[in-house]
Amino acid sequence: MRLTLIACIGGGQLGRMLGLAGLPLGLRFRFLDPSPDAPAGAVGELVVGSFDDPAALDRLAEGADVVTYEFENVAVASAMRIGAVPPSRALELGQDRLVEKELFRRLAIPSARFGSLTDTGVPAIVKSRRLGYDGKGQRRVDAVEEVGEHELAEELVSFDRELSIIGARATDGATRFWPTAENTHRDGILRVSRAPAPDAPQAAAEELLGRLLDDLGYVGVIALELFDVGGSLLANEFAPRVHNTGHWTIDGSVTSQFENHLRAILGLPLGSTDAIGQSVMINLIGGAPPVEELLRLPGVHVHLYDKEPRRGRKIGHITFVDAAEATVAEAIALVERFTDG
Amino acid sequence: MRLTLIACIGGGQLGRMLGLAGLPLGLRFRFLDPSPDAPAGAVGELVVGSFDDPAALDRLAEGADVVTYEFENVAVASAMRIGAVPPSRALELGQDRLVEKELFRRLAIPSARFGSLTDTGVPAIVKSRRLGYDGKGQRRVDAVEEVGEHELAEELVSFDRELSIIGARATDGATRFWPTAENTHRDGILRVSRAPAPDAPQAAAEELLGRLLDDLGYVGVIALELFDVGGSLLANEFAPRVHNTGHWTIDGSVTSQFENHLRAILGLPLGSTDAIGQSVMINLIGGAPPVEELLRLPGVHVHLYDKEPRRGRKIGHITFVDAAEATVAEAIALVERFTDG
Repeated sequence: MRLTLIACIGGGQLGRMLGLAGLPLGLRFRFLDPSPDAPAGAVGELVVGSFDDPAALDRLAEGADVVTYEFENVAVASAMRIGAVPPSRALELGQDRLVEKELFRRLAIPSARFGSLTDTGVPAIVKSRRLGYDGKGQRRVDAVEEVGEHELAEELVSFDRELSIIGARATDGATRFWPTAENTHRDGILRVSRAPAPDAPQAAAEELLGRLLDDLGYVGVIALELFDVGGSLLANEFAPRVHNTGHWTIDGSVTSQFENHLRAILGLPLGSTDAIGQSVMINLIGGAPPVEELLRLPGVHVHLYDKEPRRGRKIGHITFVDAAEATVAEAIALVERFTDG
Repeated sequence: MRLTLIACIGGGQLGRMLGLAGLPLGLRFRFLDPSPDAPAGAVGELVVGSFDDPAALDRLAEGADVVTYEFENVAVASAMRIGAVPPSRALELGQDRLVEKELFRRLAIPSARFGSLTDTGVPAIVKSRRLGYDGKGQRRVDAVEEVGEHELAEELVSFDRELSIIGARATDGATRFWPTAENTHRDGILRVSRAPAPDAPQAAAEELLGRLLDDLGYVGVIALELFDVGGSLLANEFAPRVHNTGHWTIDGSVTSQFENHLRAILGLPLGSTDAIGQSVMINLIGGAPPVEELLRLPGVHVHLYDKEPRRGRKIGHITFVDAAEATVAEAIALVERFTDG
């Protein structure tokens, strides 16, 4: 029997969770990753090679029914060479913060002021235009200065909370949105997501992301990070891929972001994005408690990525659905003892 | 990083689902199966060999942290050779229907009358004592005759419904039971399980299975099939492994039977067996509708095993949690169009 083959640029934890979601759908997987120990190797074939090596890319794509990617810094030329989905226009626009903000402006998606420090006022955040993630390549600036050509100043928004909405768009243009998540970061790295976020402006968030999805002619799963400022939403950035703030959907919604991403890129109908309860997802950063300690937590869902612990590195996450607040507090305290301070 | 290695005798769909449950716990897997296309090969290393080949068994077990099995007809000698868990006594007692029934009698677990046709009366069911599954090796007898040495007569019970209860026992003796499922068979093959079964005598079922678990000094997941006769329970048979009537637990309970089996055999704490809703599991026997048809069903969870369709063969299942009865009816009608009549 010939199974549908999904090829994926990148073999990290997102690829691994795509594989775990896709095997039950009767799919098989191939991943391209520079590391022979890439986490996704457990759920599919692994092509070890550089993301911009044409020969490796061609080996990845050979015989594949569809090619996708699991990180947003894939070179556009690499994605285009092998016809990766989501469409490379989404990659291209998302890789340059200035272009991304201009897209938001064109689509009347509110975002913080951006440009030079004269545009934003001070204090402001100056970010590198390209290749920033998890808070890297950012600095706070308190006096007006010249901003480099490869940098962008953004208004320092005093937001009430950080939200994100994840959506999927099918080949026929149908869209589905998961309930908005409320996210807590520390040192620029996501620590905790709670979904559905209490009192989230769900309709407004869907409307903004829907506008982006349609403009991009998007196919697949996308994440839009938002600031909630007194109930108004400001778009921060989008990621054209499955997203850490959507990991709760594995255990906490009818169809996970991973399954719907696969359904979308294969031209299959999307599944229900309804939440099945109140989820809390806690990242394991830089380390993890012993698994027997984690499994003692009532109702825990453990997701380890088979990655060597290293400072600042996401090596797993745990999720609770409809857990008592005391259980969540205990879990967070346990996790903090074994992970990055 | 050295991951805990689970070795499993058998690489069918049960092994595959054990793997899917175990990878997120940070486990890795190795399976022994005679077929190089065994379904579990997608989630672990596959040793191709016979189940009773000592060399193959030794290769399977080499360096493994724990050895388990996914079918109940594993030769006891094979299981013992490599110290498989659940304990081989459970295998041994379950492999002979006469011994199994005598065990039930000793433990005061009610079951249908058994023995010769004089013991049971006619009509009765005559079953081979060993190696029967999915209704194979059974015949109905309407007049008293001599029953062969390798056969066993069982009273023909006119039951109201077939139930099953699945439980897990940890190394410290702690037990957990999932809600009882109500099962529909046709041609001796399970078609549909509904759980929690409406008005099931849950406490009584747990009490019976608990008695069996404790007597066997069991570790792992076990299934006990029951007849409901006017609210009284008669034990039919047990299977010392994860079980088709527990597949609903993947989507419909906090911890699946596969995850708790792994937790048990690794000496880890068991997870909650609470149902998260009302589940219906429908087997795909001998064929399956196209996946795009299945995925159109609202709230469906699709589980395909990567097995060639063949008459009477289980090639997948689908599960709904808290679905409308109309959706379930539509699903059953769809499945029947593409599977064995």
